[in-house]
Amino acid sequence: MTDALRIVVVAPDLAIADPDDEHAAAQAERSRALRIGLLENNFNLIATLPADVFLGERLAQLQPDLIIVDAESEARDALEHVVMATRDARRPIVMFTNDEDTTHVKDAVAAGVSAYIVAGLAPQRIRPILDVAMARFAHEQALRTELADARTELQDRKTIDRAKGVLMQRQGLTEQAAYEKLRKTAMDKGLKLGEVARRMLDMVDLLG
Amino acid sequence: MTDALRIVVVAPDLAIADPDDEHAAAQAERSRALRIGLLENNFNLIATLPADVFLGERLAQLQPDLIIVDAESEARDALEHVVMATRDARRPIVMFTNDEDTTHVKDAVAAGVSAYIVAGLAPQRIRPILDVAMARFAHEQALRTELADARTELQDRKTIDRAKGVLMQRQGLTEQAAYEKLRKTAMDKGLKLGEVARRMLDMVDLLG
Repeated sequence: MTDALRIVVVAPDLAIADPDDEHAAAQAERSRALRIGLLENNFNLIATLPADVFLGERLAQLQPDLIIVDAESEARDALEHVVMATRDARRPIVMFTNDEDTTHVKDAVAAGVSAYIVAGLAPQRIRPILDVAMARFAHEQALRTELADARTELQDRKTIDRAKGVLMQRQGLTEQAAYEKLRKTAMDKGLKLGEVARRMLDMVDLLG
Repeated sequence: MTDALRIVVVAPDLAIADPDDEHAAAQAERSRALRIGLLENNFNLIATLPADVFLGERLAQLQPDLIIVDAESEARDALEHVVMATRDARRPIVMFTNDEDTTHVKDAVAAGVSAYIVAGLAPQRIRPILDVAMARFAHEQALRTELADARTELQDRKTIDRAKGVLMQRQGLTEQAAYEKLRKTAMDKGLKLGEVARRMLDMVDLLG
C-alpha cells in the first residue's frame, strides 16, 4: 500500500559549518542514513527539501502523498514550518526525531502529525510505520469531514431559519410559504438552499 | 507524563502446549520480554489479562488508563476482543505485533487503536510511544466529542422545529408563540428544550 507513495523528506542541510561540531556531524550522518534507507528500500522519494519559508510553495508544486520530517533537535521549528505549509492542504506527516522530550507531542499531534517516531529506526521497519501513518491520516480526515459536514448542516439550518423569519415578517408569509419561496429561488438559480438564505440575509439591509 | 499511567497488558498465555512448537516458544519469549521491560522501566503494570470473553468485565473493574495489546500472529482476534471490550468506554490502545501484514492496519485504526507497532522494540523506547498514543487518543476523543456535540445540536434543532410545527398546526399558534410554549415547559420541568420537544413528539400520537 505504500509502494507508489510520493514521499518528500523535509530535512536539514547536510553541510556542516563547523567540522568539530560532533552533534551536527551525528545529525547529518543520521539524516543521510535515513535517506539512504528510504532509497535502498525502494521508496519513491520525489524530493528532499529544507524547512524554510519556501516549503509551502514547493509542497504545493510537488503534491506529495506523505511528508517525512527528519528533525533532530530542532524538531519544533521544523514542525512549525511544515504545519504552516500544509495548513490549507493537509497531508500525512511522519516525524522522526531524536528529541526525547515528548512534551511537544501533544502539540505535534494536534497540528496533524500522523506518526511521531523518537530515536533511530532501521530502514526496513519504515514501511509499516508509513502504512500506519497513512491509515491514521485517512481516519482522522474522515472524522474531520464528518465534523465539517455536521457543522455546515447546522449552520445552513440556522441561516435558512433566519431567512424564513425575515420573509415571514416582511411579506406576511406563513412558514411554509416562506420556505417554498426560498426553495424556488434556489432551484431557479441552481444554488443550495443554505447559499440562497445566506445571500438573501447579506443583501436584506441593502435592499431596505 | 506516562509515569502514573495504569497499564493493562492483554497477552496470550505463556504456557506452551507443544514444547516443539518453535513459533509458540518465540512468541512466549517475546511476550515475557515485553512485560519484563515494562516492569524494569518502572511502568505501573496493574494487570496482564488474556484476550477472552471476560476481558470487557475485567477492564471495567480495573479502569486502566492505557491498554497494551501484545499480539503476535493472531493480532486480529486479540484486537477484536479488545475493541469489543472498550466499545462503551474508549481507552488508548497500543498494539504490539509481529504481523508485518499491515492490511489490517486500517481496520485497527478505525477500531480505535492509537498506536500500532510492528516488530520488536527495545523496552527503553516504549515511553515515547505511550506518550504519543495518549496524545493521539486525547486528540481523537476531542474530535469525536466535537462531532457528537454538533450532531446533537443538529438533531435537537430538527426535533424542536418539528415540535414547533405540531404546536402551530394543532393550536393555531405563531412560530414565536409555539417556541415560547416549549421554552416555558422546559424551564418548568427543568429539562433541555430538545428533550421537551422529543418527549412531546413521542406523546403526541398517544394524546391524539
